[in-house]
Amino acid sequence: MFRHKQPTPARLRSPRISHFSSTSFLLAHRAVVYRHNGQPSDVLTATTFPTLPPPRQHWINIKYILSPINPADINVIEGVYPSKPSPLSSWWPDGSHFDEPLFVAGNEGLAEVTAVGSGVHEYKKGDRVVLTAQQSGTWASARTIPAQFVTKVPEEFSDVNAATVTVNPSTAYNMLHTFVKLEAGEWIVQNGANSAVGQAVIQIAKRRGWKTFNFVRNRPDVDLLKARLYSLGADVVMTYEDLADKTLRDQVKTHTGNKPIRLLLNGVGGKIIPRLVGLLGSGANVVTYGGMSKEPIPVATSSLIFKDIQYRGFWQTRWYKENTLEARQDLMRELARMNLQEPEHEVVTLPREENDEGVTRRVKDLFVKMSKGQYGRKVLLKVEDPHD
Amino acid sequence: MFRHKQPTPARLRSPRISHFSSTSFLLAHRAVVYRHNGQPSDVLTATTFPTLPPPRQHWINIKYILSPINPADINVIEGVYPSKPSPLSSWWPDGSHFDEPLFVAGNEGLAEVTAVGSGVHEYKKGDRVVLTAQQSGTWASARTIPAQFVTKVPEEFSDVNAATVTVNPSTAYNMLHTFVKLEAGEWIVQNGANSAVGQAVIQIAKRRGWKTFNFVRNRPDVDLLKARLYSLGADVVMTYEDLADKTLRDQVKTHTGNKPIRLLLNGVGGKIIPRLVGLLGSGANVVTYGGMSKEPIPVATSSLIFKDIQYRGFWQTRWYKENTLEARQDLMRELARMNLQEPEHEVVTLPREENDEGVTRRVKDLFVKMSKGQYGRKVLLKVEDPHD
Repeated sequence: MFRHKQPTPARLRSPRISHFSSTSFLLAHRAVVYRHNGQPSDVLTATTFPTLPPPRQHWINIKYILSPINPADINVIEGVYPSKPSPLSSWWPDGSHFDEPLFVAGNEGLAEVTAVGSGVHEYKKGDRVVLTAQQSGTWASARTIPAQFVTKVPEEFSDVNAATVTVNPSTAYNMLHTFVKLEAGEWIVQNGANSAVGQAVIQIAKRRGWKTFNFVRNRPDVDLLKARLYSLGADVVMTYEDLADKTLRDQVKTHTGNKPIRLLLNGVGGKIIPRLVGLLGSGANVVTYGGMSKEPIPVATSSLIFKDIQYRGFWQTRWYKENTLEARQDLMRELARMNLQEPEHEVVTLPREENDEGVTRRVKDLFVKMSKGQYGRKVLLKVEDPHD
Repeated sequence: MFRHKQPTPARLRSPRISHFSSTSFLLAHRAVVYRHNGQPSDVLTATTFPTLPPPRQHWINIKYILSPINPADINVIEGVYPSKPSPLSSWWPDGSHFDEPLFVAGNEGLAEVTAVGSGVHEYKKGDRVVLTAQQSGTWASARTIPAQFVTKVPEEFSDVNAATVTVNPSTAYNMLHTFVKLEAGEWIVQNGANSAVGQAVIQIAKRRGWKTFNFVRNRPDVDLLKARLYSLGADVVMTYEDLADKTLRDQVKTHTGNKPIRLLLNGVGGKIIPRLVGLLGSGANVVTYGGMSKEPIPVATSSLIFKDIQYRGFWQTRWYKENTLEARQDLMRELARMNLQEPEHEVVTLPREENDEGVTRRVKDLFVKMSKGQYGRKVLLKVEDPHD
């Protein structure tokens, strides 16, 4: 029978099992799960499952070290993201399932291998791995999963850099290398330059010998923010208010030596875009990876016809679908070699001593705070294991 | 000295000559010219110049048969188009010039060769040619121009089809062949389907075995318009109001057999675009060649990131710059072979008997009418020659 190590409070309904084998559903230790889409603070609960069995053939057991919270994770929980997780039951090899689907939240994560099943030769106990399967559910203390869901992490990586490599720095790297073949000394423009992607763009461009015009929102501590971006290697940092400056184009030309700018990376959208496009040369690419303004991009017809601007999108999830495991590993090694500074972050620990109800309360509080914008930094969950 | 064959009224100032040789400025017979940018009805005048001299080496003399008025021509006269004509004086081989620049309006035109200079072997008297040089000034009765400014017209072409081939059908052809390699039976979507480009798209697609969803504005006589587009080979014609129909996507899927649509041709812009994009498959191209709504295109961030829609522009002028004369000739031959129906048109004759003042009045009236939208059809000028 399904056993909790600690009594489940009534408001945390345990998954109802219709039929199962005694080992097949023992798939996590403590996990942050949801049964229905909604606001994370409403629908997430921490649930402790029984101790994992030894991994089956071609599977491994892992213990999570750090599990980032990305904005897209929230959209997945809300049900408004195109990538959907598989319910926990669908992973069970014997076809058994809960009456209602149960989802483990989280897409990105760094874990340590704790045991390998028969037929697994690529990994051994103690290896650090990141999850490469999309939406496999990483906000957990331990899971048993197919070995093909992970890939090994280069040794050079710190835990924080390894835990956060698959989304933001990978997005930055691919946007800089996919759309335009940039030459040494060439300038690019980006907005949202203080985002995790933006900071990775600055650093990767710096290491490649490319120059960055970086735009950020004006704010009380903007000079501090600018100083941080300059310390990462930004060449110019400006605010969107500077876009109203009539001399800006001339300033840009002075910087670039009048060489046309061919790449704008956009994580913001909205009405600043036409002004940023005004800084670009003919045939430039505007590559969108986010829309923090929640506004559409007003594209001027003339920019398409006469200036030949190409408006494209980039989605790291699609890149993973379209590229081989080797390409992923190359990408990760390349990023490890670049030795990027860790993103500004905060580790939120979900302590092993606390019961599921207490941890659920922490999770809810965390997402209430995040929804109020009280975290400027990346939040990494450390889900401690109640079975340790 | 500069002589007019007829007295110039005071309000039509003749170009003031600073220094010249007696033959070098004899470059047109009657031409529709302007000295300053502005509304065509304000700034255009008809001016009669002396009889053309024999063509110099590598030049030819031509007599215009038909000279289309394209919307872009109006933008050029207004000074809001990126292509600028060269002033008449700058053509003079000896460097002589008027005190103020004088421009002959018009970009597209069909002409007959009346004389060839020494060294011209590609053309002979009587050849029908179209102007391939951009903004060379075609609203004229006769000109003397470099032979390299023209190319010969395939015999199959009617005068109207030849006169209008270099802009609209060429745009339609290239948009259908450049961005997506369409397969037999594949569907495309276009708006502004009753425009000259739109009608060419329908016919070219039909001849290639591609299917067209065509959108037009609703209007009192919409059934007549639909009937005309169906007669050209349209597969489905709808109005923008039909985009509100919740079953539209299913209707489209029924037509396409659920095959994703990969190409949207946009000559309109504005807020209908997101709805049209909703009919497309992942990775589709939205190719813009016009902006009749005068509204920007509101591009949804999600369409870029998750749906991988690519928003591109097409400009036939750029195509001409980037392609060889051979490619142009191939394009024209291909279009001649396709035997497209003549665009709905009206020939406006500027009669040889009338003096410049009277012709100027006709030109002004014409553009007042056009600016009020009183011409639904393409207008072709026939500038009769006062020297004939």
